[in-house]
Amino acid sequence: MQFELTREYIQNLASLVEAKDTEQILTIFNSLHPADIADILEELSHDEARYIFFRLNPTLASKTLAELEDDKIERFIQVIPTNILASELIEKMDSDDAVDVLQNIPKHIASEILTNFTDKEYQHEIANLLDYNENSAGGLMATELIRVNINWDVRTCLNEIRRLSKEVENIMLAYVVDDKNILQGTLPITQLIINHEKVKIQDIYQKDVIAVHTQTPSEEVALIMEKYDLFVMPVVDGINRLKGRITLDDVLDVVREEADKDYQLISGITQDIESSDNIFRQSKARLPWLFIGLIGGIFGSRIIGSFEGLIQEYSGLALFLPLLAAMGGNVGVQSSAIIVQSIANGTIGLESISQKIFKEFLGGLLNGLVCSSILFLYNVLFGRDFALTISVSAALFSIVLFASVFGTFVPLFLHKIKIDPALATGPFITTINDITGGLIYFTTARIIFGYL
Amino acid sequence: MQFELTREYIQNLASLVEAKDTEQILTIFNSLHPADIADILEELSHDEARYIFFRLNPTLASKTLAELEDDKIERFIQVIPTNILASELIEKMDSDDAVDVLQNIPKHIASEILTNFTDKEYQHEIANLLDYNENSAGGLMATELIRVNINWDVRTCLNEIRRLSKEVENIMLAYVVDDKNILQGTLPITQLIINHEKVKIQDIYQKDVIAVHTQTPSEEVALIMEKYDLFVMPVVDGINRLKGRITLDDVLDVVREEADKDYQLISGITQDIESSDNIFRQSKARLPWLFIGLIGGIFGSRIIGSFEGLIQEYSGLALFLPLLAAMGGNVGVQSSAIIVQSIANGTIGLESISQKIFKEFLGGLLNGLVCSSILFLYNVLFGRDFALTISVSAALFSIVLFASVFGTFVPLFLHKIKIDPALATGPFITTINDITGGLIYFTTARIIFGYL
Repeated sequence: MQFELTREYIQNLASLVEAKDTEQILTIFNSLHPADIADILEELSHDEARYIFFRLNPTLASKTLAELEDDKIERFIQVIPTNILASELIEKMDSDDAVDVLQNIPKHIASEILTNFTDKEYQHEIANLLDYNENSAGGLMATELIRVNINWDVRTCLNEIRRLSKEVENIMLAYVVDDKNILQGTLPITQLIINHEKVKIQDIYQKDVIAVHTQTPSEEVALIMEKYDLFVMPVVDGINRLKGRITLDDVLDVVREEADKDYQLISGITQDIESSDNIFRQSKARLPWLFIGLIGGIFGSRIIGSFEGLIQEYSGLALFLPLLAAMGGNVGVQSSAIIVQSIANGTIGLESISQKIFKEFLGGLLNGLVCSSILFLYNVLFGRDFALTISVSAALFSIVLFASVFGTFVPLFLHKIKIDPALATGPFITTINDITGGLIYFTTARIIFGYL
Repeated sequence: MQFELTREYIQNLASLVEAKDTEQILTIFNSLHPADIADILEELSHDEARYIFFRLNPTLASKTLAELEDDKIERFIQVIPTNILASELIEKMDSDDAVDVLQNIPKHIASEILTNFTDKEYQHEIANLLDYNENSAGGLMATELIRVNINWDVRTCLNEIRRLSKEVENIMLAYVVDDKNILQGTLPITQLIINHEKVKIQDIYQKDVIAVHTQTPSEEVALIMEKYDLFVMPVVDGINRLKGRITLDDVLDVVREEADKDYQLISGITQDIESSDNIFRQSKARLPWLFIGLIGGIFGSRIIGSFEGLIQEYSGLALFLPLLAAMGGNVGVQSSAIIVQSIANGTIGLESISQKIFKEFLGGLLNGLVCSSILFLYNVLFGRDFALTISVSAALFSIVLFASVFGTFVPLFLHKIKIDPALATGPFITTINDITGGLIYFTTARIIFGYL
């Protein structure tokens, strides 16, 4: 039932383009969903994609443009005259899609397109929307909605829907406002069907409405719509005037992007990349964390270097160096991940920072005890030198404890000073733990070898 | 505008419960959203939560039960007689919520509740739904929907909506079927408002409808609804009979859970835990990967042990051991994360496995060259022994290359044999790279120190 993109399909299209068989190409594309067309264009070469794009009818081309990945839009924008872009493509989009496209192209081109809009009212609307922060409710909302006055009756509302039904997609409810556009409540469309034409809106509308401010951050918008299972939510300004509405599909994108970002941060990737991106783009996103790891490792080597005498005397100490570093890294990443994830999902709970750290300290005691006991048993069974056995187990215990507390503290601290706590996961925590791990290990060993 | 939960709020409630001030408690709770009530109950002690829950009116209690976290439902279920649970609470839920609750409690209790349903038709419906896999479209769908016959006119459809409007929430469209319940298309509610009462459905319905099979996996359902921006999607059986509908809020949960799972896997956590979970639950989720890391580290120590003579002779080699292990781990996790994420988002593209691995090999060459050059420069500048300098840089280069290719291959391979590729991220990749890193390093060093 769904469209499936295969390599054969792409090869077939490429040869149709080469043969310039426009008729055949249009037959194929006119029956496809714009989201599928966008997928196809992204797999074709620049020239092939452009050949097809320019032959689509304007409505389909406009919808396809709105579906393209942010970083793929520019290759079409650049080669189309701005007046055509404005009147034929961008102006036909829903306001939130139009804003999305304009935000993802160079500012001077966006301005030029905007100046070329033929519908001046829509032009002002889009210009206003572009003023909102991209990551706020204002940046997410669309202005297309059904607005009804609280003094109207059902009949007037139905007429309003008839008037706007072509402009507004996915109509589930109407927004009830007073004469000053102050949001009063909502009215599910089904209420208009159930009730008689003469019934007054004020007698049937729902007063309790969950709305957000234009400046509410996107992630908070997502958490609210998710929590209350809303498909659509109104956006208001400081004096509760209705500004727009956010639909759940946009929030789904926010959740996906946020999750992707956190996942990439924990895996040491600094920019949003995909496996299909080219090598240089990938390296650019990967090298910064590798570089930090390298610096951390060099620091670590200097710390270990200051214990070189100890290593020369007891070379067995070197054997457990990677194990201890890895365990510290693993524990630290686990701890920070739990906190980062709970903050992102709004499930952080009401415990204070010190309560959380104390809890993690207890958890670290437990995990440290289990892990160091296993390592102790292993070393005893395999007849390692007793001082080494004691040193390694004691160091592991201390490292697990330190990494637990440190991994919990850093993201909580970052969150408190309003820096994205996800920055504290992955390579950062691993690197710090590598360095402190070495220090803890050899200090412990020096003490123990000194005494025994 | 939104409800905000604070520690003071919880303390205040707890003292109201202690004073058994039921009237005050009900005044508070009757004005709250069920999702907020669920949040509050989760922060209270068992006894306090139960005291409040049992005093809520059945409708509110039923909605609250549907909003509780999966693992918190049992503490209420256990102490309520099953006949009351059935007729007063579960039976009042939407079919997808009822199924969700029944799936998250012990099987024998669920059966007992189901037997006690008073509405026998609903009982059969729920029993049927429970037969679907929890992670499939059948397990996600609700059966409450507006079904209209293709031979009806607008007037009959409007009557059908009037009849069902209390039962079905969030009505955006009606599903058009033939006499045999075979799905024919959809009809947006606005069409019923725009068109005259006598207009035939067959003249105004939308034929192109994207539907999924009852057995389509949840993640695929999510990708489809996301791609085509659907708020609601029909579910059909093998012969295209309409079985139910999936709404976007349920898909949002799937996306969130999937993202959480991947995030926890990469950070070395085996079960869904939150920062508010107790220490033992957290340790249980954390120890398995730590244990694997420990075993890997012990293996690694044995490999390094076989080079102990080399270390005794050139103790400087030990200094760079953690650096090399960490870099291998970082690079491997980056590579696997890119693949895992692209698979999860459906952005994996059409390149074959060998193309992807070759590309990653080239990327590894680039990253390896950059990183090992930096390390080389550092060691030259700080006047390290030349053989050591060469050994460390050559090893780093080889390790980055190996980790890139290995980190790409493993998740692609797991995906191919239909195992969740996210398993291959985080501690698993790190551990393997730790072991091979040591081997590569000392082998390189032995060769170079042998020659120089």
